[in-house]
Amino acid sequence: MRIAIDAMGGDRAPQAIIDGALAAIDVIEDDDELVLIGREDIIRQYLGEDIRWKSKISIVHAPEMIAMDDSPVDALRRKRKSSISIMARMGADKEVDAVVSAGNTGAYVAACQMLMRLLPGVSRPGILVVFPTLGGPVIACDVGANIAPKPLHLHQYAMMSTIYAREVVGIPNPTVSLISIGQEDAKGNELVKTTNQLLRDDPRINFVGNIEPREFINGPANIIICDGFVGNVILKLTEGIAESLFKAIAHEISLQKPDLIKFFQPLMDGLYAKHDYNEYGGAPLLGVDGTCMISHGSSNANGIKNAILRARQQVLTNINEKISQQLQRITVR
Amino acid sequence: MRIAIDAMGGDRAPQAIIDGALAAIDVIEDDDELVLIGREDIIRQYLGEDIRWKSKISIVHAPEMIAMDDSPVDALRRKRKSSISIMARMGADKEVDAVVSAGNTGAYVAACQMLMRLLPGVSRPGILVVFPTLGGPVIACDVGANIAPKPLHLHQYAMMSTIYAREVVGIPNPTVSLISIGQEDAKGNELVKTTNQLLRDDPRINFVGNIEPREFINGPANIIICDGFVGNVILKLTEGIAESLFKAIAHEISLQKPDLIKFFQPLMDGLYAKHDYNEYGGAPLLGVDGTCMISHGSSNANGIKNAILRARQQVLTNINEKISQQLQRITVR
Repeated sequence: MRIAIDAMGGDRAPQAIIDGALAAIDVIEDDDELVLIGREDIIRQYLGEDIRWKSKISIVHAPEMIAMDDSPVDALRRKRKSSISIMARMGADKEVDAVVSAGNTGAYVAACQMLMRLLPGVSRPGILVVFPTLGGPVIACDVGANIAPKPLHLHQYAMMSTIYAREVVGIPNPTVSLISIGQEDAKGNELVKTTNQLLRDDPRINFVGNIEPREFINGPANIIICDGFVGNVILKLTEGIAESLFKAIAHEISLQKPDLIKFFQPLMDGLYAKHDYNEYGGAPLLGVDGTCMISHGSSNANGIKNAILRARQQVLTNINEKISQQLQRITVR
Repeated sequence: MRIAIDAMGGDRAPQAIIDGALAAIDVIEDDDELVLIGREDIIRQYLGEDIRWKSKISIVHAPEMIAMDDSPVDALRRKRKSSISIMARMGADKEVDAVVSAGNTGAYVAACQMLMRLLPGVSRPGILVVFPTLGGPVIACDVGANIAPKPLHLHQYAMMSTIYAREVVGIPNPTVSLISIGQEDAKGNELVKTTNQLLRDDPRINFVGNIEPREFINGPANIIICDGFVGNVILKLTEGIAESLFKAIAHEISLQKPDLIKFFQPLMDGLYAKHDYNEYGGAPLLGVDGTCMISHGSSNANGIKNAILRARQQVLTNINEKISQQLQRITVR
C-alpha cells in the first residue's frame, strides 16, 4: 500500500510531518510505502542521514505550498503545483491508496472532493471525528465539510458513519443520534426535523433520536450527526473550553494551594494525553473515492504517525465499497 | 416597582423559587413589591409563618401549571390559567414591571412574545446570556429564541446586545463579534456572510469581525452574535463539557492520587462558584415590550434572587426605550 503525506501542511510542518513519517515506517508492513510530497530539498534536509527511510519513503517534489490561512478556492486555482493539489491528483489517479494532510483543511477538502471525486451514491463528503470520552469513543459527522447541508446529506452521513463505526472503530451495532436543541422529535430547525424522519424510517440505521449537545460527551449514542457548521462549532468549542478550564483550574490552584501545582500538573498531563487528538491521528473525509485523512493543524509527530496508521487501517477495511453499496439505496426524496 | 415571579416553574420549584423571593425582599427597595404567581395554597404553605414577606410579597393564584417537558405551543393553548400565561398577561397589561421564570423556556418565551408583544422596530426577540470567563463577562445572543433567523435579526441582536452591555453590564464601548467557523469574512454560511456585511456597515456597532467558537471564552470580544440554534449548542455544550471535565479530573485523581481528592474538591467548588449561572441569575429576553428574565431550569434560591435583582436593574436602566430608538433605524434591506 502507498500512503501519501503532505510534508508542507500543518503548524509544525515540515519537522513534525517528517518525524511522524519516520515513526510510522517502524510499524507499517514490508510492502507499504510512504510518499512525502513537498519541496524536495527541504524534505531531504529534514530526513537527513537517517537510513531507516531509504527503502520505505519516496519523495514527490511539489514546488508550491498552500499556507494555513490561504483562501482555499483561490489557492487551489493559483497553486496547481502545491503539495495538496499534487497529492489529491495522485489520489485521483490511484497512484497512492491514501492521502494525509495537516494543512489548510478547506483547500485539502476541496482538492480531494474536486479531483478524487465522490463515491457512486454519495452527494457530499463529510468529515468524521472520533471524540475520546470517559464512556468510550463518540463519533461525530459532519464537522465542517458541508456547512449548508440538506436532510439527504445528513442521512448519508448517518449511513457512512454507521459503516465507519462498525468496520473501523469496531462497534458492532452503533447507535446514531441527531444533534438538536431538545430531545423531542418536534424540536429543532427544519433540517433537524426532516432528517429525524429520514433516520427513523431507515431500518439500516440504529437511530435513537435527537440529543442535546450537553449530553453527547456522556456517550448516550455512539454516533452524533449534525450539519457541518454546528459540528465545527462543537469540535472547536470542545477544544477551547477544555483548554480554558485547565487554565482556570491551574489558576485557582496557584491562588489557593500553590504547593499542589506539582501534583496537579502530571495529573492534567495524563488526562490531556487520554483526550489528545494526536492519539487518534486524523479525521477521515468520508464519501470521496479514496482514503483522505485530515490531521489537526497543530498535529505533532505522534499525531501524523497515527494518522498514517489510521489511513492504512481504513484502506484495509475496504469501507468505500460498503459505503457505495449502501448509499446507492438512499435516493433523493 | 412590581416584579412577578413564576412560583411553579423550574426543577426545584416551588421551594427554590419562594426561598429566592424571600431572599430578594431583604435587598430590594421599600417601594418594590414581588408578586408570586402559582397555586395559592402551595405558595402560602411554602411562605409559611415568615413575617418578612407580609408587606412585600403578594400572591396571584394560577390554578394550572406548565410542566418542564410540555410542548410549548400546546401548553399555552390548553393551559390559559397557568402561571406562565397569567404572568405574561400581567406583563402585557403593565400590572407588573418585570417577569421572572425558571419554567419551560419554550412556553415562557412564546407567551412573552405573543402576549407582551415586541418593541417598535424589533422583528424577533433574542435570549442574551452572560458567560463569566477569566477575562470578564462575555455576552452571547441569541441562545435559543430564534432558531431560523435572518441577517436582519442578527443585526438587531447585535444592536440590542450593545445597548445591554453598555447600560446593564457597564461596558462603555462593547466590541461585537460574529460566531463563524473561521475568522475570515469570506468563511461561514450565507447567514454569517450577509450578517458580517450588515455589522461592518453599521457605525453604531463596534464590530471586530468573525470569531471561532474556541476563542470566544478567551474574551477577544465582549459580545458574540449567533443564530439561536448555534447559540443554544454553545450554551449547552459549555455546561456539558465543564461538567464532564470536572468528573474526568476527579476520576483521574481518584485513580492516581486518591489522597489529593480532599484538597481538590474545595478548589473545584470554588471554581464552580465563580462560573455558576446562579450568580448571574437569569438571561433577559430582549426585544419584548417589558422585562422578561429567563432563569436556568435548575436554578437554586440564590439564582432566583439574583434573577429578580437583575430584572430590577434592567427596568431601572430603561433600556427598552433605547432599544426601540436604535432599532427603528434598522430596516429590512
